[in-house]
Amino acid sequence: MEENFKTLEFKNDILYLIDQRLLPAKFEIFECKDYKDVEFSIRDMVVRGAPAIGATAAYGVYLAYKEFQGDDKAFFEACNFLSQARPTAINLKWAINRMKKFYETNKNSSNILKLMLDEATTIQEEDVAVNKAMGENGLSVVPQGATILTHCNAGALATAGWGTALGVIKSAFYAGKNIFVYADETRPRLQGARLTAWELTQAKIPSKLIPDTAAATLIRDGKIDLVVLGADRIAANGDVCNKLGTFGLSVVCKQYGVPFYSAAPISTIDFTINDGSEIPIEERDKNEVRFIGETQVAPKEMDVYNPCFDVTPHQNVTGIITEKGIIYPPFKDNIAKLKKELNL
Amino acid sequence: MEENFKTLEFKNDILYLIDQRLLPAKFEIFECKDYKDVEFSIRDMVVRGAPAIGATAAYGVYLAYKEFQGDDKAFFEACNFLSQARPTAINLKWAINRMKKFYETNKNSSNILKLMLDEATTIQEEDVAVNKAMGENGLSVVPQGATILTHCNAGALATAGWGTALGVIKSAFYAGKNIFVYADETRPRLQGARLTAWELTQAKIPSKLIPDTAAATLIRDGKIDLVVLGADRIAANGDVCNKLGTFGLSVVCKQYGVPFYSAAPISTIDFTINDGSEIPIEERDKNEVRFIGETQVAPKEMDVYNPCFDVTPHQNVTGIITEKGIIYPPFKDNIAKLKKELNL
Repeated sequence: MEENFKTLEFKNDILYLIDQRLLPAKFEIFECKDYKDVEFSIRDMVVRGAPAIGATAAYGVYLAYKEFQGDDKAFFEACNFLSQARPTAINLKWAINRMKKFYETNKNSSNILKLMLDEATTIQEEDVAVNKAMGENGLSVVPQGATILTHCNAGALATAGWGTALGVIKSAFYAGKNIFVYADETRPRLQGARLTAWELTQAKIPSKLIPDTAAATLIRDGKIDLVVLGADRIAANGDVCNKLGTFGLSVVCKQYGVPFYSAAPISTIDFTINDGSEIPIEERDKNEVRFIGETQVAPKEMDVYNPCFDVTPHQNVTGIITEKGIIYPPFKDNIAKLKKELNL
Repeated sequence: MEENFKTLEFKNDILYLIDQRLLPAKFEIFECKDYKDVEFSIRDMVVRGAPAIGATAAYGVYLAYKEFQGDDKAFFEACNFLSQARPTAINLKWAINRMKKFYETNKNSSNILKLMLDEATTIQEEDVAVNKAMGENGLSVVPQGATILTHCNAGALATAGWGTALGVIKSAFYAGKNIFVYADETRPRLQGARLTAWELTQAKIPSKLIPDTAAATLIRDGKIDLVVLGADRIAANGDVCNKLGTFGLSVVCKQYGVPFYSAAPISTIDFTINDGSEIPIEERDKNEVRFIGETQVAPKEMDVYNPCFDVTPHQNVTGIITEKGIIYPPFKDNIAKLKKELNL
């Protein structure tokens, strides 16, 4: 199964991105013809979502190399410029470093330009493959006819394609599971309303958008068979840091016995962090809550608390769906075992 | 203590209303010079909140009587016209009926016009008195230095003045309790952001606005000493029907041992309803979720589930703060006792 849209696509030395700043009101393609366009697209959030940013940056490194072939100083400066497009996007630096390392190893090769492009393509394809594997692994926990609740956007738009949590949902849909999806709108940035709802309508998956506060009664009233959402970081004990609102959902699920899954690649697990209390919670701009588009929805002088994430304790998590299988409790032991098996 | 704004004020035969359609971006007074202006102000939501609508309508009946003195047919037609301004506002019909009954009883009095105005004023003043009594009664459950979480707007703007849940908060603040308030923004209509935040800044009560989804971790992390919110309807067993999001909060409070109070006048208790399952939940316009102001935040073709209220089971409610005192469990017995005592 393939999506009928491509978050990013590289053809004839041009990177084509869905302009996510305009969704869902407008669908437009943003063209990056050189590495400066790529830097702008990341900085201005034409593209967002850690894996999507990583793949985008990889093509940016290729375009920089194409422009500066033979001038290593200018090339590395361009790489630095790219890596500063977003301050905290870990995949951005990871992808750029991988491309630079690849260049160092292969720079004496006669077809280095082509090899650089192949490496960027590999980074993109690897991410899609990881997501599809997650989707396959998730099938076992999605009953026929299930109604699934998801939160935020962990879809194709956030990755190089397919998506993590929304990838599991798509895989279940295309496997003929006859599912129905409720999507939380996900205040304050409304990624559920703007992006997940858009992906669901593109894929024609039967679904409804809800205010975040509508989820609790749906869960209580037996209308939700399972929750599947993403993760921004997972601690070594299975505590899940994810978009604000995840923890509250987990409490209601626990109370009413509804399975609660996080779908995330192994790379999301931070083995250096023992538990969720060590994860710093970024506070975002207060105006994200005071304004929506041009509309002022709160007094300008009203103070705001706008944390970006929350941490769900592993006791509230049923399982973590990864590309290597589903991790179940006891999470600490099973994550340690996986780390050993994978030599991480 | 008095507010530095008046939700409604009647002077020299003109009703002055805060135009709540424009808050918080603009503060403007809307003038009603005749009953048709009053009808418009209710229909177009210049004024909202059941008790505020009731008091507004009472002045509308007075203005209609002033216009049609001696022409009962025209007067009663105007009353009918007023009563259809909002379909489900129970206080609207209650206030108009009370004014009509008062007229029938007193119409042979020589100063009936003045008496009609006095009756409308009484309706407004009674509501403020009920709210202030609730505020006094609530003091006993607000510890010194408490941090209070509230949801939606149950403030002066929703009533003839002072407010119910926000009235309890104001009373605690003016009693020198040194409180701090977190206000849920309350999607989708954002009454917390638009109205409660505005009232809190007007009263200079230390406070922060939060996305609804930020409440759960604040409760878990011991940052909230109690929750106080309103009620749209309370069943005879203490189940509380209130703005969407109330139930989810109650589950997290129960789990983490945080007191959870509903503040509502006795008139909110529907003795004919045995439990919350008998309360129909109104679904509102899907575009309330798809658009915010002029900004489209979800695909137009995305289906939406937008329930207006939810029901919190009495097991999750610590107490119900009324003008006659605080009702505690066992709610069914204590509500029945109160009904008997008050001859309701």
